[in-house]
Amino acid sequence: MWQVTEEDLLSISIGAGILGTGGGGNPYIGMLRARETIRQYGPVTVLSADDLQDTDKIVCVGGIGAPTVGIEKVRGKQSYDALVALENHLNVKATALISNEIGGSNSLEPLIPAAISGLPVVDADGMGRAFPEFQMKTFFVYGVPYAPMAIADEKGNVAIIPKAITSKWVERIARSITIQMGSVACYALAPMTATQVRDTAVKDSLTLSKKLGESVRNANKTKSDPINAMLKVNPGKVLYEGKISGLQRKTTQGFARGEVTVDGSGDFAGTVMTIEFQNENLIARIENEVVCVVPDLISIVDSERGEPITTELLRYGFRITVIGFPSPDLWTTKEGLQVVGPSCFGYEVDYTPLVLT
Amino acid sequence: MWQVTEEDLLSISIGAGILGTGGGGNPYIGMLRARETIRQYGPVTVLSADDLQDTDKIVCVGGIGAPTVGIEKVRGKQSYDALVALENHLNVKATALISNEIGGSNSLEPLIPAAISGLPVVDADGMGRAFPEFQMKTFFVYGVPYAPMAIADEKGNVAIIPKAITSKWVERIARSITIQMGSVACYALAPMTATQVRDTAVKDSLTLSKKLGESVRNANKTKSDPINAMLKVNPGKVLYEGKISGLQRKTTQGFARGEVTVDGSGDFAGTVMTIEFQNENLIARIENEVVCVVPDLISIVDSERGEPITTELLRYGFRITVIGFPSPDLWTTKEGLQVVGPSCFGYEVDYTPLVLT
Repeated sequence: MWQVTEEDLLSISIGAGILGTGGGGNPYIGMLRARETIRQYGPVTVLSADDLQDTDKIVCVGGIGAPTVGIEKVRGKQSYDALVALENHLNVKATALISNEIGGSNSLEPLIPAAISGLPVVDADGMGRAFPEFQMKTFFVYGVPYAPMAIADEKGNVAIIPKAITSKWVERIARSITIQMGSVACYALAPMTATQVRDTAVKDSLTLSKKLGESVRNANKTKSDPINAMLKVNPGKVLYEGKISGLQRKTTQGFARGEVTVDGSGDFAGTVMTIEFQNENLIARIENEVVCVVPDLISIVDSERGEPITTELLRYGFRITVIGFPSPDLWTTKEGLQVVGPSCFGYEVDYTPLVLT
Repeated sequence: MWQVTEEDLLSISIGAGILGTGGGGNPYIGMLRARETIRQYGPVTVLSADDLQDTDKIVCVGGIGAPTVGIEKVRGKQSYDALVALENHLNVKATALISNEIGGSNSLEPLIPAAISGLPVVDADGMGRAFPEFQMKTFFVYGVPYAPMAIADEKGNVAIIPKAITSKWVERIARSITIQMGSVACYALAPMTATQVRDTAVKDSLTLSKKLGESVRNANKTKSDPINAMLKVNPGKVLYEGKISGLQRKTTQGFARGEVTVDGSGDFAGTVMTIEFQNENLIARIENEVVCVVPDLISIVDSERGEPITTELLRYGFRITVIGFPSPDLWTTKEGLQVVGPSCFGYEVDYTPLVLT
């Protein structure tokens, strides 16, 4: 059990930016919002999944939408509004909150309703990274109900999906609602039990974000290599180094989609990497050869400072390092790959786990 | 108080087709569905608004979507599913049902959940005709809450809008949900009190539909003029007679939109009428002069048999008579015209009430 301090927020936002693989919402804006709320309402307690009681009712909260819109149309307390709508609908009170995804601002999203309502957050999440679509949660893969879900915007509109035939139908309906709400909204999900969290969540991910962020900040303070520092905290592999030489991007159907081209430097000079994204980086190729693919993590960081660059902030000329991290184990099962494997994003390649050498 | 018989259903469907001004869902398919349900569950009692008790909770139910899709993708018991979802959400039981709009199959829609749940329906509705959009109800113009609303599809998906900033926002969100659900769905609305129904509904409209339909059927049986017969029951005016010579139609954004061109015959020979529709007929012009516009009713019927032709069934070559009926008084107030006047559909013309001469 620990308390989130203001100092932690910045570290978490950097670590969550790295784990977010480009998406999950802009972590810096998420940090500012969480800081504002914690300053107003006081600190938030973080519980380990092992600290949960059998009587606990753990509600997953998160943001949904296009990150390109999220940096222009900043969220307010909508995840609190969604939580209240869900509680009223079910006539149940949450006893703890959990993040839908540890990547990007969604790592910090639960802190806002938690601070307002005085609830703890669980040190775990439903992805161990970020993914673009609602149904892509370890919770649902391993049997946690995907409904009811409540969704709220900043204007005062709320919708609830009490029942849907599949989690993908929740995605479909919720995405269309999100687009109407202005392509950014927040949601809250049917309460989970402590056992469900322990069995189906990616654990200790808030702590991992914080440690990752601290390693990068310390390296920058001590003028040591931030990339090496983060790889010591979370083992991974440098996939590429270079300069962004091309960028195609469109915000469509409620997602930020696109492709970034990188001209190699150092060991990679003379080659080109392309990375395709749908909110998150999905597949990285060097000269048409796939070097990393979902569910493994493809993170783009600033080569000098090691700070994450989310998809909506990619710019021509940036000098970047592309890092691959192995996927959480919950995703690499047959069931997991059916939900977030390459084919789920339209790629006709088999998932080959990233080898760390 | 009266009971809806199978014989009544056909008359109601014809009358509701005429009052539907082209929309409200295909009345013949609505009739078949209501007949099937009544055969299975037994007859439905119709209450006058004056028969309602102060303790009554009257739930408005209806279909939403594009009529062009409605004839291909026939609704099941979704309005019952929406009713149950609403009751569960509010933890309240309905004591009576009321139609959202008397036009088209929506006149018969409440009979389906009523038969299944053993509830009566009220002889009244929220339009006195049909209109394409959710917010276009006399209820809301005169202060009845527009949320929560529940919406269900035939697959088993349900959504609830517990809160929205305006009725138009309910339309916006519900329409996007409807499109995902396949462009046809059913909904149920927050319960009304007896006073609210008496003050804001268009009354005795189920009886009017039935009488209109009976007049047409009797005229056809006795080989007399069905147009004259219906005008005796509901005073109106023959606006045009002719043959359909052109038709543009597209199903877009969840609506059936288009324009029909009619070459005049008889007194109208040598002229052309155009009628624009968005699910319902909205504006009728003879040689660019507006002769009838919303909220007045523009009904297209078969010239020989007087039977209504809904927008999705309009075909090249049909010989039709276009009839105008004056709008219900609740729509011609300043408040009413702000919601359903010509400008609400993008027409820059003033509403001039139809003059019956």
